[in-house]
Amino acid sequence: MATQANSVPHPTLVEVDPFMASIIAGILISQHMQPSNQDKQVFKIQCVDWTGAQIGNNDYSDDIRSIDLTKIHNLSGPIAIEGAEPGDCLVVDILDVTPFEKMPWGYTGIFELENGGGLFAKEFNSKAAKAIWDFKGIYATSRHIPGVRFAGVSHPGLIGTAPSAELLATWNERERGLIAQDPHAVPALAFAPEFKGAYIGQDLDPELLEKIKTEGARTIPGREHGGNCDIKNLSRGSRCYFPVFIPGANLSVGDLHFSQGDAGIITFSTSIIKGGVEKFALKQPIFLPSPVDPMYSAKLIFEGISVDYHGDGKQYNMDATVAYKQAALNAIAYLMKIGYTREQAYLLLSAAPVESHVGAIVDSPNACVTLALPLGIFEHDILPKEEGLEKIDFGQCAIRSDGVI
Amino acid sequence: MATQANSVPHPTLVEVDPFMASIIAGILISQHMQPSNQDKQVFKIQCVDWTGAQIGNNDYSDDIRSIDLTKIHNLSGPIAIEGAEPGDCLVVDILDVTPFEKMPWGYTGIFELENGGGLFAKEFNSKAAKAIWDFKGIYATSRHIPGVRFAGVSHPGLIGTAPSAELLATWNERERGLIAQDPHAVPALAFAPEFKGAYIGQDLDPELLEKIKTEGARTIPGREHGGNCDIKNLSRGSRCYFPVFIPGANLSVGDLHFSQGDAGIITFSTSIIKGGVEKFALKQPIFLPSPVDPMYSAKLIFEGISVDYHGDGKQYNMDATVAYKQAALNAIAYLMKIGYTREQAYLLLSAAPVESHVGAIVDSPNACVTLALPLGIFEHDILPKEEGLEKIDFGQCAIRSDGVI
Amino acid sequence: MATQANSVPHPTLVEVDPFMASIIAGILISQHMQPSNQDKQVFKIQCVDWTGAQIGNNDYSDDIRSIDLTKIHNLSGPIAIEGAEPGDCLVVDILDVTPFEKMPWGYTGIFELENGGGLFAKEFNSKAAKAIWDFKGIYATSRHIPGVRFAGVSHPGLIGTAPSAELLATWNERERGLIAQDPHAVPALAFAPEFKGAYIGQDLDPELLEKIKTEGARTIPGREHGGNCDIKNLSRGSRCYFPVFIPGANLSVGDLHFSQGDAGIITFSTSIIKGGVEKFALKQPIFLPSPVDPMYSAKLIFEGISVDYHGDGKQYNMDATVAYKQAALNAIAYLMKIGYTREQAYLLLSAAPVESHVGAIVDSPNACVTLALPLGIFEHDILPKEEGLEKIDFGQCAIRSDGVI
Amino acid sequence: MATQANSVPHPTLVEVDPFMASIIAGILISQHMQPSNQDKQVFKIQCVDWTGAQIGNNDYSDDIRSIDLTKIHNLSGPIAIEGAEPGDCLVVDILDVTPFEKMPWGYTGIFELENGGGLFAKEFNSKAAKAIWDFKGIYATSRHIPGVRFAGVSHPGLIGTAPSAELLATWNERERGLIAQDPHAVPALAFAPEFKGAYIGQDLDPELLEKIKTEGARTIPGREHGGNCDIKNLSRGSRCYFPVFIPGANLSVGDLHFSQGDAGIITFSTSIIKGGVEKFALKQPIFLPSPVDPMYSAKLIFEGISVDYHGDGKQYNMDATVAYKQAALNAIAYLMKIGYTREQAYLLLSAAPVESHVGAIVDSPNACVTLALPLGIFEHDILPKEEGLEKIDFGQCAIRSDGVI
Repeated sequence: MATQANSVPHPTLVEVDPFMASIIAGILISQHMQPSNQDKQVFKIQCVDWTGAQIGNNDYSDDIRSIDLTKIHNLSGPIAIEGAEPGDCLVVDILDVTPFEKMPWGYTGIFELENGGGLFAKEFNSKAAKAIWDFKGIYATSRHIPGVRFAGVSHPGLIGTAPSAELLATWNERERGLIAQDPHAVPALAFAPEFKGAYIGQDLDPELLEKIKTEGARTIPGREHGGNCDIKNLSRGSRCYFPVFIPGANLSVGDLHFSQGDAGIITFSTSIIKGGVEKFALKQPIFLPSPVDPMYSAKLIFEGISVDYHGDGKQYNMDATVAYKQAALNAIAYLMKIGYTREQAYLLLSAAPVESHVGAIVDSPNACVTLALPLGIFEHDILPKEEGLEKIDFGQCAIRSDGVI
Repeated sequence: MATQANSVPHPTLVEVDPFMASIIAGILISQHMQPSNQDKQVFKIQCVDWTGAQIGNNDYSDDIRSIDLTKIHNLSGPIAIEGAEPGDCLVVDILDVTPFEKMPWGYTGIFELENGGGLFAKEFNSKAAKAIWDFKGIYATSRHIPGVRFAGVSHPGLIGTAPSAELLATWNERERGLIAQDPHAVPALAFAPEFKGAYIGQDLDPELLEKIKTEGARTIPGREHGGNCDIKNLSRGSRCYFPVFIPGANLSVGDLHFSQGDAGIITFSTSIIKGGVEKFALKQPIFLPSPVDPMYSAKLIFEGISVDYHGDGKQYNMDATVAYKQAALNAIAYLMKIGYTREQAYLLLSAAPVESHVGAIVDSPNACVTLALPLGIFEHDILPKEEGLEKIDFGQCAIRSDGVI
Repeated sequence: MATQANSVPHPTLVEVDPFMASIIAGILISQHMQPSNQDKQVFKIQCVDWTGAQIGNNDYSDDIRSIDLTKIHNLSGPIAIEGAEPGDCLVVDILDVTPFEKMPWGYTGIFELENGGGLFAKEFNSKAAKAIWDFKGIYATSRHIPGVRFAGVSHPGLIGTAPSAELLATWNERERGLIAQDPHAVPALAFAPEFKGAYIGQDLDPELLEKIKTEGARTIPGREHGGNCDIKNLSRGSRCYFPVFIPGANLSVGDLHFSQGDAGIITFSTSIIKGGVEKFALKQPIFLPSPVDPMYSAKLIFEGISVDYHGDGKQYNMDATVAYKQAALNAIAYLMKIGYTREQAYLLLSAAPVESHVGAIVDSPNACVTLALPLGIFEHDILPKEEGLEKIDFGQCAIRSDGVI
Repeated sequence: MATQANSVPHPTLVEVDPFMASIIAGILISQHMQPSNQDKQVFKIQCVDWTGAQIGNNDYSDDIRSIDLTKIHNLSGPIAIEGAEPGDCLVVDILDVTPFEKMPWGYTGIFELENGGGLFAKEFNSKAAKAIWDFKGIYATSRHIPGVRFAGVSHPGLIGTAPSAELLATWNERERGLIAQDPHAVPALAFAPEFKGAYIGQDLDPELLEKIKTEGARTIPGREHGGNCDIKNLSRGSRCYFPVFIPGANLSVGDLHFSQGDAGIITFSTSIIKGGVEKFALKQPIFLPSPVDPMYSAKLIFEGISVDYHGDGKQYNMDATVAYKQAALNAIAYLMKIGYTREQAYLLLSAAPVESHVGAIVDSPNACVTLALPLGIFEHDILPKEEGLEKIDFGQCAIRSDGVI
């Protein structure tokens, strides 16, 4: 008979309140161990959204506008794995990623040019905007972007081991070098250690605190340890191989994505491959994707090249970033033809399971990048038609209460 | 009864000898019409390989080393489509792409740093190398890269409509601007019009010839009309929507890819959507991919960020090209662990159905790009294993007869 | 800010204790309404496993052997949908299917020839056996069938609307006719109404009780209303269109499958299409499958024809059931070559995401059916090899405590 | 340089004229060898359509009506593989399947109840009808079934090794037994050896001729050697493992399918695994499917159970054939709602890449079978809609010149 006695839930190693910033955030700690964990035990980690619950389920984007970005990313961890040593490979099975039952929504935001920026911060002179996504089982819909429903590709936006002191020093040096090229750039070129806003979460030795103040790398970009890579294919069901830089590996995770900014629960198991860094030539994590990513076989694909033809027409040399931007802007222009506002289109591309491929970076001077929009997420048929595209009024996403867009 | 009378083959509009350079090549001609073509007729176009048959099915790379790159790309066309007007959209169904029965092979080449270059020309100080791919139905194998067999994603590397005089002028101006930044760069930043080597293929008016000499854009990069985009997903079965810039559209095609440099036959049908450029906001072609691309669901995925950690460790700002290179170099390092030489690994990534995704370009300063290697193309199990990777001797690809690599 | 106030969980309309039989089971009630439900509201229904918690997470199959099958299926419902009328179509979105957090396991059982039977009850003279599946996020593994791990295709084995009195009469008549052909067959040809074991769950009018005793169709087979169809593709993310036979439609659900016999929670939303039965020619439900079914592209496929060559060699006439059995027996024989016992192989085929296709039923006298085994679920490479298959000792599944198999 | 000298086409071992019946047909010869073939050489085999060119590309079905079915199947082969011995496994790579360039069409036919029959011969009291499919690269369209275009799943309908004398005797005995149950059934239950119409293709010894007359099994059904299994997933790119029954294996192939009845060219390579029958427990071929089958992820799925509710309402016991028929009839009814005639719908299901799954054969008395219709093959949106389905006039397929349907 099925009994409670023979039914042992997987333990939750980190519990958080998704309505409050969690106690661990913003800085990776390289020498501090936390709940130790047996090989191959399945366990769960709860995560607040990356902002620490700063964004609300409402119809204005004022919270996006005034967000305090010194507080990001709210992470859960680090989790030390007994026996992991520098040079080993930490194998992490991302077994599941689910939202909190009590919080069946998430959001995607466009940040202000001066506070957060983003891909098109300059091009659009971005004003805060957002879309709230309602989670309905495997699907997300939004009252702010009607007419679409998509199966989420649930994944941790940020996951990584902790760096060694040496690696941390390398990061700080190279990023400071970049900042020095244009210290007052808006948006900033990179972000130096910043103690304000950071939660360390423990009573720490004053000397260590001082080190963190000056050396604690921001979690904003992904790096050699993984980190904030936002790789949608690293989704639930994936197996990821991380390089280990310090004893215990110290795995941290957060910034869960269903749509994009979501609190939730991630289920893991871990194991160690001794000497895996050398065995697999690991300079950065490698992974096996999940067998259960959404399959929308019918797509409309947009191309872009490294010429800023949506802007000043400038020719770049094999620049895949410029090419990617053109492809995205082509997609946005198309979505506007069927009735979405520019902001809705931009938010949709940030949340839906679009796929951007590097076509080629070989034919000087133009890199070619494509962006594929799955047709199955739209309630209407958006295919090109002889008679043109039907334009529907989809309203607008959540914007600032002062109406500025 | 089945009879010849009721079985009409699809007409071949352009015939070529795959063992000779074809008569039309290297320059897109904007005002010259060729075989006119009815709406929706299925027709075939034969294409020499992009070099004009300069590369042989042999075991040295000397032909790659001494290739005359002024002669590329060998194209077939232009095909004028009756009724197509500037501002229209030319819908092209790429119905099939097949090799010549009499030439069941193709090749992938690494070009010399000083003659052709390529993605890692500088990093590797590239010397000529190549792999010959034998076509066996839908598969390709290579005696130069043993242990792999993959289903080709047959597609035209280069396909596009002809530019208007205005668009051509824009191209020339912006690319000359780039060249001017470093006119003696090796490899070159971009390529100015070059009459040497170009086949025009007709007795042309001397005035027109003179214009071509000075204004005929090289076909090397993809541009707003399509062109040499090398998009693997634009494969047989795709439907592509091209902007039309001149009366008749003047479609040209070449550089067919099964592996990479392949002569072959492409089957088309076309139609026109009046005013499609405005209807679909077309700044560059858009397309619907084929339902029959190879599906290798099990993959090993490599990550890269915009730090040149395989080189001098320099930090770049959101540079997807640098990130893409790191991902590719990580894959090459892994493939070397299982026994491939660096050259074999590089050639394999250029030909096999790998897929590179832009993970994210939002988290300053690091763009994140991934490269997915399909596991099903390998005869051996190449998954990471506790005991490490088995290293097999796969020999070497075709290299220069002087043995320099 | 994210607050509890703006985060409303989806309501749970039916709550159950997965360790106890639920109050509604075994009989579909055609005229009785339960919790009414608004159009398009997302709601959750909890379900005990189909046996009502009779099977335990242990290492003997004695509970399978002595199972009381008069008590199945334990269902949750019926849910009346306001406004649904006979002739309408009830659209049910199966938004999610998840296990209980407190019960992260399920099972697959082989039933005794004399108590439950099953596909190969006679061929194998079946003795009770089982495998417990441990749920690890999207994956299931079993200590009873080592060497495999598969992504579940979570779906309700049983889901359907309630029949009208007329339809119920038709069922009873035709099934009694079949039983009459061989009333003492083992296993039984079909199952007549059986009051013993049935939970009705309400204080019912004695007259109604009497009707149920004699007319309440068993829930064992699927029928025109859906019911116990065990269609794996009707998985979370699917949209199903049910014919409505009585006012309110009265949807019931149970027998959730991750592996096979699993308690869990199903998330729904519903809507009504007036007159849908006529509009869509609905004789039985139709559905749109989910975009997130597991994709294991590499498979080993077994064929079968309608000749019982695993048994007495008898030739059947276009019998897809016989053909299906041969394909399954071929797969079992293969799995035994790599080290699984017959029981393990049989259980594995019942739980893993295998896919059986009807190849052809046209070439008299042999129907052809195939069964595809996904290679990606095995830890070892099971492909046919020149040197033969490596046989590994995988132990045995849970068998009877008296050791009889 | 690419030259003819270094470009050797794959040899064609069997050449046929697709407009004439070929010289080898109708009977598998178990002891006679033909062009011998080296291990792993790639080679091509040309095949007439299965009827031997009896069907024409025209708009009446009179040729289907009066077809001489004693002449089928027209096969190419047998091909003896040197070194293959009974008990070995013949590995056949089906590398490609293409139509003749000079015959870019095929057909699907409904046969008369009295001459050929078919799945619904009795239910529909079938009269001859057909659809001609025009091949346009990877796609097929039909003037007889407008509104659809699908990517073909090119595969050999019939492929197999030759039986041994013992196996042949078994076939004859069991099939004669079935025929004896109802010798005058229409359509026939099975087909005894029939010399009329058979092409043997060589000057044979009179004694052997006599044996063939009385023992040569008809090629109509698939059997243990493979044969006419019509498995769409055994498509180009597949690798199939055949049991070998006689020295040389004697592989025969024909009945190529793009749509359904198509002449064409198949490309093979072969190898032998000694003792493979025992190694892999081969009672019938097993195979690895191709990585390039069409992927139409959006589908509409129809269910069927083993109750003939489209006919007399009879209850069958776990009969997957009856269930399959109901699913197909449900699909046909749906297709008629959108404007196709019953004949068009029936022909479409026979040719398009539909997929029929055995849902379950365990819940007595009803087996459950599903049939999935890919939505992407239709030009119009055929999804169920609140307002019902739009009915379009698609005309009719090719019917008899006397107008009888």
